[in-house]
Amino acid sequence: MSDARPVGIFDSGLGGLTVVKELVRLMPGEELIYLGDTARFPYGGRSDETIRNLGLQDAKFLLKRDIKMIVVACNTVSSVALEYLRESVHDIPVIGVVLPGARAAVFRTAEKKIGVIGTAATIRTQSYVKAIHDIDPDIKVFFRACPLFAPLVEDNLYDSEIARMVAQHYIYQLVDNGIDCLILGCTHYPLLMEVIQGVVGSRVELIDSALWAAKEAQDILTALDACNPRSTGGLEGSTFFITDLTPGFSQGAQIFLGQKLNKIEKIELEKITG
Amino acid sequence: MSDARPVGIFDSGLGGLTVVKELVRLMPGEELIYLGDTARFPYGGRSDETIRNLGLQDAKFLLKRDIKMIVVACNTVSSVALEYLRESVHDIPVIGVVLPGARAAVFRTAEKKIGVIGTAATIRTQSYVKAIHDIDPDIKVFFRACPLFAPLVEDNLYDSEIARMVAQHYIYQLVDNGIDCLILGCTHYPLLMEVIQGVVGSRVELIDSALWAAKEAQDILTALDACNPRSTGGLEGSTFFITDLTPGFSQGAQIFLGQKLNKIEKIELEKITG
Repeated sequence: MSDARPVGIFDSGLGGLTVVKELVRLMPGEELIYLGDTARFPYGGRSDETIRNLGLQDAKFLLKRDIKMIVVACNTVSSVALEYLRESVHDIPVIGVVLPGARAAVFRTAEKKIGVIGTAATIRTQSYVKAIHDIDPDIKVFFRACPLFAPLVEDNLYDSEIARMVAQHYIYQLVDNGIDCLILGCTHYPLLMEVIQGVVGSRVELIDSALWAAKEAQDILTALDACNPRSTGGLEGSTFFITDLTPGFSQGAQIFLGQKLNKIEKIELEKITG
Repeated sequence: MSDARPVGIFDSGLGGLTVVKELVRLMPGEELIYLGDTARFPYGGRSDETIRNLGLQDAKFLLKRDIKMIVVACNTVSSVALEYLRESVHDIPVIGVVLPGARAAVFRTAEKKIGVIGTAATIRTQSYVKAIHDIDPDIKVFFRACPLFAPLVEDNLYDSEIARMVAQHYIYQLVDNGIDCLILGCTHYPLLMEVIQGVVGSRVELIDSALWAAKEAQDILTALDACNPRSTGGLEGSTFFITDLTPGFSQGAQIFLGQKLNKIEKIELEKITG
């Protein structure tokens, strides 16, 4: 049995396109339906209750489109509301970005010392720490919120001296703690990989949550024998919705996807909140 | 005639508390009703249409509370939607932060060269440029969006080497252009005053829009003979609403107000959008 229905994926904004990029690379036959809630971006500073409501509204919007899986590309929603979403969405798998990233780091750390960086919200929830300790409670986890990283990427400064200085400020302590793996717990951070690798040195392996979430999506579709039998997908066969045509959306798509996104559709927020 | 009704003031978040601070300093007798739309912060990256809708919802919330004036502390709304709000609010004055800052700079520049910094949205709208040229079309205006400044302040890094480096990156060109006044076109920037002054040197005067907006509010209330005859105001006599109890709201209030804010009330977003 195979399944030609599309894969739904949502994020608070455009950063989730880093997950789209990996999904398309790994599974070029799959159709995707992406929702970026640019009218209410960013979710990171919101309260847990608000984040749960936002996540559920996003998921419901996708569910109306006969999808076979939901990928929560947003670290904030994955950290705060994944169980809540699973309780609300019964029929199809819901996967986030936290567990795949945590699992990859656990499999790779030799020193049993893992670092985690993310937005203030992701770090505050301790979601990566819990996910790591669920697998191996003996691993030491060191974490740091890096609230300037996402704005740096959005200001196109991800390969600058400022970025290097900010990375040093945030990450130096983690390296001093002897980590050998560092989880990039935010969709924006893959853009900073070179800068961060320069700061942590070659001894520390960077774990890209976007990549591992895409791999998990592939594993689950394969296990369910639910891959798309046709090859109608890829960026051309996929659909992209945003809730606000923000002035930066075109440049943002280019940054996160690594290429232009020609068709992007604005939907009214009422279609989500109503 | 005097007028004991409160002054309404709103912002997309907590940055508008820098305007509150100046209002309380200049007019300690006035009661304020503040609305910080922390559930939908920041407005800066949104489309003009969305910004107009958000601003109108905020204004309507305040209008239900029998106020005598609206101060739009948000540079984004002041830039995009002030006329729109004035058309919708008939009975009481609506003042923004753009014109007061622009006017102060025009009165002060000897070289007739003014610099403006702000968020991407404020700079994109050219609101300060238009306001300056309405007064004196011969003045040369140089501008620069500084999208990292607000996150720097919120991450408590406003007095750091990183802040100095970012300020240099953004502002150096403006100084090279020979400006003698620099308008701080964002509620967050007063916190960066020392760092920015260090970069621009003592020859350039910094114009704090928050301060000049508060002065304009005072001038208008005085001209209308509508000051509060009682002395029931100040921070103690004022009311503060936010739309989301974000994790950072307590620290944010401390940063922008320079002191703790004990009573802050969360209101449901439906009370604004409905």
